[in-house]
Amino acid sequence: MAELAGNVLVGQSGGPTAVVNASVAGIIAEALNHDCVEEIYGSLNGVYGLLQEDLIDLAAESQQQIRALKHTPGAALGSCRYKLKKPADFDRVLEVFKAHNIRYFFYIGGNDSQDTAAKISAHAQAQGYELRVIGVPKTVDNDLPATDHCPGYGSAAKYLATSVRELAADHESLGQGDLVSIIEVMGRGAGWIAASAALAKRRDQPHDPPHLIYLPEIPFNQEKCLEDIRRVLKREKFCQIVVAEGLTDADGNYVSADPATDAFGHAQLGGAGEFLRDLVEANLPGVKARLSNPGLLQRCAAHAASKVDADEAFLAGQAAVKAAINGETDKLITLVRGDTDIYSCETGLAPLGEVANNVKKLPREWINEDGVSMNFQFIRYAQPLIQGEVAVPHENGVPVFARLDKVRVDKTLPAYVA
Amino acid sequence: MAELAGNVLVGQSGGPTAVVNASVAGIIAEALNHDCVEEIYGSLNGVYGLLQEDLIDLAAESQQQIRALKHTPGAALGSCRYKLKKPADFDRVLEVFKAHNIRYFFYIGGNDSQDTAAKISAHAQAQGYELRVIGVPKTVDNDLPATDHCPGYGSAAKYLATSVRELAADHESLGQGDLVSIIEVMGRGAGWIAASAALAKRRDQPHDPPHLIYLPEIPFNQEKCLEDIRRVLKREKFCQIVVAEGLTDADGNYVSADPATDAFGHAQLGGAGEFLRDLVEANLPGVKARLSNPGLLQRCAAHAASKVDADEAFLAGQAAVKAAINGETDKLITLVRGDTDIYSCETGLAPLGEVANNVKKLPREWINEDGVSMNFQFIRYAQPLIQGEVAVPHENGVPVFARLDKVRVDKTLPAYVA
Repeated sequence: MAELAGNVLVGQSGGPTAVVNASVAGIIAEALNHDCVEEIYGSLNGVYGLLQEDLIDLAAESQQQIRALKHTPGAALGSCRYKLKKPADFDRVLEVFKAHNIRYFFYIGGNDSQDTAAKISAHAQAQGYELRVIGVPKTVDNDLPATDHCPGYGSAAKYLATSVRELAADHESLGQGDLVSIIEVMGRGAGWIAASAALAKRRDQPHDPPHLIYLPEIPFNQEKCLEDIRRVLKREKFCQIVVAEGLTDADGNYVSADPATDAFGHAQLGGAGEFLRDLVEANLPGVKARLSNPGLLQRCAAHAASKVDADEAFLAGQAAVKAAINGETDKLITLVRGDTDIYSCETGLAPLGEVANNVKKLPREWINEDGVSMNFQFIRYAQPLIQGEVAVPHENGVPVFARLDKVRVDKTLPAYVA
Repeated sequence: MAELAGNVLVGQSGGPTAVVNASVAGIIAEALNHDCVEEIYGSLNGVYGLLQEDLIDLAAESQQQIRALKHTPGAALGSCRYKLKKPADFDRVLEVFKAHNIRYFFYIGGNDSQDTAAKISAHAQAQGYELRVIGVPKTVDNDLPATDHCPGYGSAAKYLATSVRELAADHESLGQGDLVSIIEVMGRGAGWIAASAALAKRRDQPHDPPHLIYLPEIPFNQEKCLEDIRRVLKREKFCQIVVAEGLTDADGNYVSADPATDAFGHAQLGGAGEFLRDLVEANLPGVKARLSNPGLLQRCAAHAASKVDADEAFLAGQAAVKAAINGETDKLITLVRGDTDIYSCETGLAPLGEVANNVKKLPREWINEDGVSMNFQFIRYAQPLIQGEVAVPHENGVPVFARLDKVRVDKTLPAYVA
């Protein structure tokens, strides 16, 4: 394989995770090892900034800032949800690549983003421009196929399991009166995050909270749900529920889609958590229902991130550079679990096209027969991913995150209207 | 002062905090130092368990468990919101005290709980039973008078400031399009928790998130709010809002009290966060609004607790025992701030009656003229309270909390129907 000399470009896309910048740090750290890499650029706000020729010089950032990326939430380069649409967009991307001699393009993102990366690569090949494109996976949802698990998931899972254990310690102590505590969590199409709440249970303590987990994979049945809650309350006087936002009924409709009217007279879609709270209050007299909805805190809680997750996100970034330098292109970095009892993980490669627009759901055989709890297969899968804590430096009592200087690369092309 | 020999009883009451068990640990640790203390009992679920003669032997717990109390959320002894009502209740409490030779009663709780403690003490005095009663303050709301600040507040403040900084890092990176992020926080009558989000700002960076803080102390005005948001969006394209659940309009009504109808046809009180989200979406076309509502996670997030707060909660427990042994009774332990530039804190004593049923609001002069941000006086007050991180042991990736054995003390009285 002939060495390809040129510049590196890194971009981030889609919803951030607590460790998505660890992959950026891994790419930069590895790229610095290779003489064929001349400059290391970042694209501001993913392909959106790429179209505008908004590039920054990542080699100009200090070592401290690059190191701090490992524990910094959000997308340090900026993110986007922009979809390259017209052929002119692809021509423009190629123009920018040529103008800045970009020969290595690393795109950190989920299914949509990897679809974009694959199309950019195809266009470059069609135009005879030598370019190596490697995708780095990221999503708290853990719903990417081809990879055993996805960087970002372990930290969301750890944050949720920690929060559920804390919430349960609080609620269990309240005594007097039946209490239903509901926590609504992320996950539209798959229940990976909701399922991870099961990690809050101690080993061999199946009655520990959370008592009921409602997953998008299991069609929701109102009568069964009320029965489930009554059974738990009878035993514990306290019922901790975890519900995925994407809970659907037997017809595949979101349960929360019943239109109510908000204070301004507009039809309003409540969340799955609000739906369950209303269900309990309307049907279980004398039972108190409480709702927590941490929302996007689930994907940015760097102070509670998993060390295994942060390390693997960094590793995936390094692996992307190694693969590209070795001549690979059109590939996604995957995480491959060792088949020994003690957890180990290395990286692999999958065709970019394979992951685009596919959703990996929870295997039915990892969910207990009751449909509301996870069995040992899931625990065996997920527990290694939340191990270890990330040491986040604090200043004045709050975590300190990286702030890149973002030194702009001079633009050489005319402006572009996307 | 004649030495009073007898047994200690500790109870917890009201909503727990992340450090409320550190005060229990402080009481036990200090009580063991005094020979006049024979037994150390806990009352399960506060005065509710006291009426039932549900006592546990705290001296039978292992050293490890007592130490683990320092980082355990929830009320380890169980809590209650029970109000002693009839004279017979007070007679019963005294009977239980006599039956178990309780001479020292420590009640950890907020205003209502200290009111109960004061009444129990008055009844014992009226009946000529020698009893020393000391209250230990606890509330995330920080609204107790007489004390500079309240154990529990610093940890809630640290959790919120941390979460807001993380949320902001996430949202700032999303690029493209105007985004309003709303986080609803605890605080019905006072805005101490909401205000603490201001600690997420870096020093001398007034434009850092959170951009707007809506407090119960400042009457809410819809028009001004929309103007505030428009102004921030124009400057930043992103507006981070923190809103206290107790937001009220100029007439003193909760803004969220406009009745809407839920999916079951019942009138439903939305939260202040939902109200703001709806307000933004109805009035600012093209602006996306996102809501996070961590709910009770704010008061139980032990993994993000403040070390200063945990240490002071422990100190307050110790001070309660020392005061009682020294002959004090009918007092609340207070936290007294040193008047030097470097933060220091010692304990003091206030009459129990002084705190009962009073609410301390944010001083108006700590809130900027604009009504939506905090000035240096608040920062100077609150910043020392969130310093330091508590080392919480983890097992299988999640925090491990104390689980008391709760060895029951034999009952000697007939059952009582409360």
